[in-house]
Amino acid sequence: MPQNFQDRLAAAIQRCRTPAVVGIDPVYESLPPALRREQPTVRQAADQVHAFCRTLIDIAAAHAPAVKLNSAFFEALYEHGVATYYRLVRHAHARGLLVIGDIKRGDIGSTARLYARGHLAAPPFADVDADCIPDAVTLAGYLGEGAVRPFVEAAAAGGRGVYVLVRPSDPGADEIHGFGGPAGRAFYQHMAELVARWGGGAALVGQCGLSCVGAVVAPKDAASTSALRNTMPVTPWLVPGYGAQGAGVEACRPCFLPGGRGAIINASRSVIYAFSRPELAARGSQDWEACVDRACAAFAADVAPLAGC
Amino acid sequence: MPQNFQDRLAAAIQRCRTPAVVGIDPVYESLPPALRREQPTVRQAADQVHAFCRTLIDIAAAHAPAVKLNSAFFEALYEHGVATYYRLVRHAHARGLLVIGDIKRGDIGSTARLYARGHLAAPPFADVDADCIPDAVTLAGYLGEGAVRPFVEAAAAGGRGVYVLVRPSDPGADEIHGFGGPAGRAFYQHMAELVARWGGGAALVGQCGLSCVGAVVAPKDAASTSALRNTMPVTPWLVPGYGAQGAGVEACRPCFLPGGRGAIINASRSVIYAFSRPELAARGSQDWEACVDRACAAFAADVAPLAGC
Repeated sequence: MPQNFQDRLAAAIQRCRTPAVVGIDPVYESLPPALRREQPTVRQAADQVHAFCRTLIDIAAAHAPAVKLNSAFFEALYEHGVATYYRLVRHAHARGLLVIGDIKRGDIGSTARLYARGHLAAPPFADVDADCIPDAVTLAGYLGEGAVRPFVEAAAAGGRGVYVLVRPSDPGADEIHGFGGPAGRAFYQHMAELVARWGGGAALVGQCGLSCVGAVVAPKDAASTSALRNTMPVTPWLVPGYGAQGAGVEACRPCFLPGGRGAIINASRSVIYAFSRPELAARGSQDWEACVDRACAAFAADVAPLAGC
Repeated sequence: MPQNFQDRLAAAIQRCRTPAVVGIDPVYESLPPALRREQPTVRQAADQVHAFCRTLIDIAAAHAPAVKLNSAFFEALYEHGVATYYRLVRHAHARGLLVIGDIKRGDIGSTARLYARGHLAAPPFADVDADCIPDAVTLAGYLGEGAVRPFVEAAAAGGRGVYVLVRPSDPGADEIHGFGGPAGRAFYQHMAELVARWGGGAALVGQCGLSCVGAVVAPKDAASTSALRNTMPVTPWLVPGYGAQGAGVEACRPCFLPGGRGAIINASRSVIYAFSRPELAARGSQDWEACVDRACAAFAADVAPLAGC
């Protein structure tokens, strides 16, 4: 059996001394001016997005154990963006990074089986190798266990992982996730229990004590975050919302298990577009790479103590 | 303003005299033997899937107003499958069909904006035209209105539509969608109310009295289906689960509004793989196209009375 994904991730966190994950969310019109042109063709846009993200990955590799590629930002460029996505997964692997594909897929079992093929399973084709497949993906489990099971099977077979949405970072999601509460048990708590159950089988839990079935949980007030953490004792968390979305280090603290285990923290916009933030750009450099590198180093250092690094 | 999608769909249903939608869910190893080879490369597989689906679309165009392309089945072939998806949308348009992209995307607003670009908005690139963009897409609204709004804006601007998941066809989804019920209001009823509200604005409702914001609702018992129908008086439905998934004509009846308006019925496997069903294949033909054509014609005729055609 291949090594459990969470064991691989734990080793990478130890090696890099931070639980930071750099989120790669490329928007063409937000690229550094030197990488843009007027009215590009879609192929030109995909090529420039590729160049931008390749540099982001090189920078991330110097500071962090993993990157998260958000599929939406590549799908905006149709099949050309999707081709770029797979190229970048391969490049990140070549740089020694673990890769999370942020795909948030969720459909009934017969369809989920096909999504798993494209996004997490070992490629069945002689001309496609596993280097272009992410080490883990995010999922939406709102169509039930059947939506998740094909991915869990692929994860278990390939030393890969999944992170299932439990509590998203967008406040607008509360009208869904608060359903049933506060008097009763809220919907997000129900999802937390289901995800814990789906990933609770002994065969899915690595030597580090964490399952290859994780959860996406945004930090909110400490009390509700701690309650969720108790609901999911072997479930690793991918924590969004750090940086541009408003969460700070303290809000993230209750996401971790004792000893600083069990969570990784993602920042996307606050790192990869640091060159467009006046207070950083004003430090005197026209060099967007240096600006991103500083922001990436600061992010990695800021969250390092959370994991006891 | 372009014509409301539901007005365009109503006209197409009148013209074709059926509310049938043919679901295109291609699995390489289920293709007719003549279209398969041993150990194909991914490009070869994508080419054969394209050939199969192109013929399915030609057949569907003779019987039905619309096809539904399930993105998962194309994503299983990486960027090559995604390129095939867009080619097939274009081909279906050339055959006069409306196209529903079954993508079930759902993420927070800042990400949903990018998904909408790739899947429903008018292409901003000079070398991509709108013919390869579906007329409507399916969505998951579980991250709240922000996950849906960018698509609704694209739909309103382009005479396109969305169908948001309310009640899926997979019985395994009940552990999610039954949450809160039966004593209280169940989660799927909450989603139905939200979807009705998201699509209720006058600017979104066409001359036919239906909104460009629809719902995906699987038929179950008549009482619960009728109750959902009453919750969503201007919400058009895309009804999955017909045929291979078990629902028959009678179960679909309460999905329609008075006069047979407001719903379309999808069948996928029971039509497109009719050649592999012994009772149909045994009718003496080795000709898979003829077998699919008969199944498609029968499906279109079976559901025609539901729409008063």
